[in-house]
Amino acid sequence: MALSDDFYTLLGTTRKAARGLVTVNTQQKNAALEAIAEGLETSVPEIVEANQRDLQRGAEEGIAGGLLDRLLLDEKRIIALASAVRDVIALPDPVGQIVRGNTLANGVRISEVRVPFGVVGAIYEARPNVTVDILALALKSGNGAVLRGGSAAAQTNQVLVAVMQRAITGAGLPGEAFLSIDDFGREGASALMKARGYIDVLIPRGSADLIQAVVRESTVPVIETGSGVVHVYVDASAEEAMALDIVRNAKTHRPSVCNAAETLLVHESAAERLLPALLEMLTEEGVEILGDETARSQHSGVHAASSETWRTEHHSLAMGVKVVSSMDEAIDHIAAYSTHHTDAIVTSDFANAERFLTEVDSAVVMVNTSTRFTDGGEFGFGAEVGISTQKLHARGPMGLADLTSTKWLVRGTGQIRH
Amino acid sequence: MALSDDFYTLLGTTRKAARGLVTVNTQQKNAALEAIAEGLETSVPEIVEANQRDLQRGAEEGIAGGLLDRLLLDEKRIIALASAVRDVIALPDPVGQIVRGNTLANGVRISEVRVPFGVVGAIYEARPNVTVDILALALKSGNGAVLRGGSAAAQTNQVLVAVMQRAITGAGLPGEAFLSIDDFGREGASALMKARGYIDVLIPRGSADLIQAVVRESTVPVIETGSGVVHVYVDASAEEAMALDIVRNAKTHRPSVCNAAETLLVHESAAERLLPALLEMLTEEGVEILGDETARSQHSGVHAASSETWRTEHHSLAMGVKVVSSMDEAIDHIAAYSTHHTDAIVTSDFANAERFLTEVDSAVVMVNTSTRFTDGGEFGFGAEVGISTQKLHARGPMGLADLTSTKWLVRGTGQIRH
Repeated sequence: MALSDDFYTLLGTTRKAARGLVTVNTQQKNAALEAIAEGLETSVPEIVEANQRDLQRGAEEGIAGGLLDRLLLDEKRIIALASAVRDVIALPDPVGQIVRGNTLANGVRISEVRVPFGVVGAIYEARPNVTVDILALALKSGNGAVLRGGSAAAQTNQVLVAVMQRAITGAGLPGEAFLSIDDFGREGASALMKARGYIDVLIPRGSADLIQAVVRESTVPVIETGSGVVHVYVDASAEEAMALDIVRNAKTHRPSVCNAAETLLVHESAAERLLPALLEMLTEEGVEILGDETARSQHSGVHAASSETWRTEHHSLAMGVKVVSSMDEAIDHIAAYSTHHTDAIVTSDFANAERFLTEVDSAVVMVNTSTRFTDGGEFGFGAEVGISTQKLHARGPMGLADLTSTKWLVRGTGQIRH
Repeated sequence: MALSDDFYTLLGTTRKAARGLVTVNTQQKNAALEAIAEGLETSVPEIVEANQRDLQRGAEEGIAGGLLDRLLLDEKRIIALASAVRDVIALPDPVGQIVRGNTLANGVRISEVRVPFGVVGAIYEARPNVTVDILALALKSGNGAVLRGGSAAAQTNQVLVAVMQRAITGAGLPGEAFLSIDDFGREGASALMKARGYIDVLIPRGSADLIQAVVRESTVPVIETGSGVVHVYVDASAEEAMALDIVRNAKTHRPSVCNAAETLLVHESAAERLLPALLEMLTEEGVEILGDETARSQHSGVHAASSETWRTEHHSLAMGVKVVSSMDEAIDHIAAYSTHHTDAIVTSDFANAERFLTEVDSAVVMVNTSTRFTDGGEFGFGAEVGISTQKLHARGPMGLADLTSTKWLVRGTGQIRH
């Protein structure tokens, strides 16, 4: 590790400053968030200027246009970021919520309450909006944050963090609890993944490759959010209209996001009845269909699926279609290829519905509804903290409470153990 | 990685078999646990014979007597293990518990239910009782298990797992969901720590060194359980009798366990009033006192503390004693040296009590009661799954529910997203 001691000194300072957030109440945090929103609004020229330098360097280095657009912060987008910070003010504060508690037989009172993690680490790519987003969510949940936003957005992130730190300090809260480590380059990102004792939890945001790299390398606990190879299984007894509605919505409503469906499985005894209509609907919707032999025999527009089809998150209007000989085969296919984000069955059969709910091991398992409902907003959580595809700590759509830990408070009157 | 493909084939078989546990109900799991208890009882000669081989090899290799005693399984201990398995039968089954749920505005019903993790990995040392303990807890919570118990107990573990697998299979459940990998040696243990996709969560059991090694190396999520550098802080306003009772109980009731106190902090304005009596009580209880200068000036039997004193979990009748000039210093000392397991304050001051509860960031924070109460049994959880000193997923005493994940079940009648 060639990193200077500076790196760990900074992480240590951040950790110590974050302890100061534990005694801050919701009003104070909300005031700091309002100061951040105002700080962003009044710093538009400064932010745009830094962002222009990032964009210029990106253009010189031949970064793709889509990436440049994600990098871009203009006045309109900065105002939208400020507005998103104000949305966080409106969210309930999870810190101090009592999860459970009771009085023991000897009169000792125990209660489990939500507390901040301490310091949240974030690793992401070329999305300066994430800098604002994560910092605001961390602050509201009482956490410090160490942000590694990637070299492409380094100038922008530096100014954003400086603006927000100034606002936090101005509101009387410890601005030093928030740190950007873009200056330390890739080495800094690697060190962050091993910074146990400094960072309590790491949140990667971005491509599936980035998330998997963080999950593989990190010894700090990671909250893995998700890529979605999402399935819709049309069971033998599925109603035609419902199957068409759900498959259409799951695939075409917003194909770029993680809860969009990627693979359609159809029971063979429903194939004759339903498959032609499903394939025709998808074709009309402009979906590129990658089908198995049966699907290809049913519709001329179907391309041949490859072995890669079933493990691909297309992020676009493309869909794998496979006919299965049984529900067992559908469940086995999902076990083999699903990223365990969301999988759905369309069926009229009660026992099959319950069996699917029990046997499919995904964060969200659905009967007769669109996979697009896997979403913090739709579930009523308010904030979009991400959708966890891991099994520890949080699974499925996450709310602000998932950025907290708990501790047990134990109050006695001198009790000892006998 | 020089491991043969066999290793991953076995892990794959285990994972697939564990899927079969998802559809098994509580009665079936309890019947399998009863079969295990009976299998252990009727296999005493077979187990003892294998254990003798481990003990003999251990003696030849010059293993310490304490370790040999931990290795030993005689008839009495095997009967006790069978009894511990029957205790697990009595525990409520967490699988299927509904954590929360509601009906969305569009009529979609969502519920978050407890489900097994899948496969639990365990890494431990020379304690064949852990083999039985973890397997029983895993089975009851619907998980498969991959067990790495260390070479010293390899023969014993092999027979134990074979006996339990036979019982599970005999009860109609998938015995293949449980695997011992002692045959693969240290390489197997290392590979287990990286076996993402095969193992959902890893539980290290044993010394602080073992746990830290697993935490450092593992890319599979770890449930870290704990070493306890536990503090009792006697505040300026503490009542003498209560302080004496709590410090005595916290230090001497069972000094070898993790919730025993290691460090006594005393506010300087209470030192004159309370410290002589505290030191005299500890001396009478046979405690070796490692004190700072003030403590040494108060009692002739106090040895000098070193910088190591404050970070040491003694597991014995030894205690560090330090006088602090303020509550801030006490809280800072705890922040610097605590393992964040359990820390307690003895005080008559309400504001100080609440401040200690808020600012000390440990799994369990106590006012006016003995640290010995940090225990799953005392908290009313029934099982002793361990005490988590990490912040993700579970913190503090863990119950069987902490060996489960959750998933969201979503039931609709054809709803799509607009």
